[in-house]
This record gives sequence, C-alpha cells and structure tokens, in this order.
Amino acid sequence: MTEHYLEDFTPGQVWRTGRARITADRIKSFAAEFDPQPFHLDEAAAQATLFGGLAASGWHTAPTTMRLLVEGELKPAGGIIGAGFEELRWVMPVRPGDELRAESEVLEVRASTSRPGQGLVKLRTTAFNQDGEPVLILVGTLLVPRRRADAAPPG
Amino acid sequence: MTEHYLEDFTPGQVWRTGRARITADRIKSFAAEFDPQPFHLDEAAAQATLFGGLAASGWHTAPTTMRLLVEGELKPAGGIIGAGFEELRWVMPVRPGDELRAESEVLEVRASTSRPGQGLVKLRTTAFNQDGEPVLILVGTLLVPRRRADAAPPG
Repeated sequence: MTEHYLEDFTPGQVWRTGRARITADRIKSFAAEFDPQPFHLDEAAAQATLFGGLAASGWHTAPTTMRLLVEGELKPAGGIIGAGFEELRWVMPVRPGDELRAESEVLEVRASTSRPGQGLVKLRTTAFNQDGEPVLILVGTLLVPRRRADAAPPG
Repeated sequence: MTEHYLEDFTPGQVWRTGRARITADRIKSFAAEFDPQPFHLDEAAAQATLFGGLAASGWHTAPTTMRLLVEGELKPAGGIIGAGFEELRWVMPVRPGDELRAESEVLEVRASTSRPGQGLVKLRTTAFNQDGEPVLILVGTLLVPRRRADAAPPG
C-alpha cells in the first residue's frame, strides 16, 4: 500500500472509493441505537413523515461514507484524520438497498503553521447513490504528514 | 410529551440532554464497521499514533450526540431533522469510559421561504465529557414546523 504525504496532494485531484450497500435492516438497527425516530425505524411509520418512507439516518450514511474513504484510494500516512468539517449536507434521502460510492476532490493544500511536520488538505467528498445522484456532501480538512518534516513549506 | 414548533424557539435558549457513556468495546466495534483505523481499534496500536491511545471515531461520537438530542429536552414536532451543518468539529478525543452530555443553543430562528408550513432553527450543539470539557461542536439547522401554517411569518 502506497501512503500519501502532503506533497502528493494537489488541488483538483479526485480520489475514488468502492461501493457499500445500505440495507433496511441496518438502517433500522443503526437508528435504534443512534437516531431512534420513526422515519428511520419503521417502513409504515415512515410513510406519514416528511421522508415518505424509510430513510437512513444521516448519522448512518456519514460513517458509511467514512468507511468507503478508509478503504478507498486516498491513503494519507498516519490515517484519515479529520481536523473538522465546514459543511455536512444530506442532499437527498438514502433508501433501503441504495449502493453508495464517494469521490473526494482536493480543494486546497497547505502547510500547518502550528505543526511543522504536518499539513492540511481540504477535500470536498460527495457520496452518490447507484443512480449517480449526490446524497451527501462533506467539506472538511484532513491532517496529513509532510514527507520531509525538515523541508521548507511549499509556495 | 410536549412537541415544539417554530414559535417556541428564540435565540439564546439552551436545550439540554441526558448522558451517554462510551465504552472501549463499542469504540472498537463501531470502528470495525465504519472507521477501521488503528487509533479506534486497538489500545496498543493506538499508542503509536497521533491520538496516543484508543479514541472514539468522530463518526461514533457524532451519532452518540444525536441519540442524546433525540432523547433530550428538544422535541421539534415532526422530529429532529437536520437540513445540514455548517460546522462539525471534534475538539478533543473521546476516550473509553467518557460520559457525554450535550447542550444546544439556539442561534437563529426564521421562516422558510420555500416551505410555508416550516421554519429553520439554527443551533450550536456542544457535547461535553464528564469533566465539562467540550469534545464536539456541531452548528446546524433543523427543519421545524410552524404551529399555524397559515400564520404570517414572524418579524
């Protein structure tokens, strides 16, 4: 496995992932533990809600997208460690049987001012369903080590 | 249970939750499914990482906070439905045995321009550990129904 360092990232790059299917059973069991609301727990009850049918909790689709990222092309040395997100948006409901994949576009690459050995890579990750429709958008910044901690900052 | 409508929210209000303990076992099993990285999976392997010991995935602490909200004081009619977040920040690691609670401060209340029966409530939710230290900050907007869909918008 090739690991990626700050120097390997440039704005405009796109990193891809495999696919993950979201089942009705896992939608319900995840919701029972973390987001016990009718539209995530029960098909019949969900009909009467804003969602008009069973939909995955956004707190289920976000970690599912994280799993795809961890197993995808993007392999920062030290792991995928988020410094924080400035956008997390669920664009449309994820339904039972939907199959998700994600793409992460590099928006910005910069050295860290506080940690000389590290840098920050800002990414926009979009998860798509099997019809190519975006379901989730995440804009966040990862901590990524520099290949040479002693090198001068780029730019 | 009293349900809350748009008219019940005002900036500056604070809504509170109960508490939830994060165990080492659930940190590891959650990570095995959604965020399989050494600092979330194994105490010994985590020592050598940036975290310096086992820490919960942020994708575990965020849904745990959601569970606290669903069972907390805040009960929007129709459920807790996030329109999206503009900030999601993990301020410090959550460790095995930590007990979380959350507070949500109302930042902004407005009628929806596109959906006459609904409004938008912007909240800053902070999750604290048992020592009162903030571990997670979420700024997001909930869809909340108006009590009287035919009423003129406030303000």
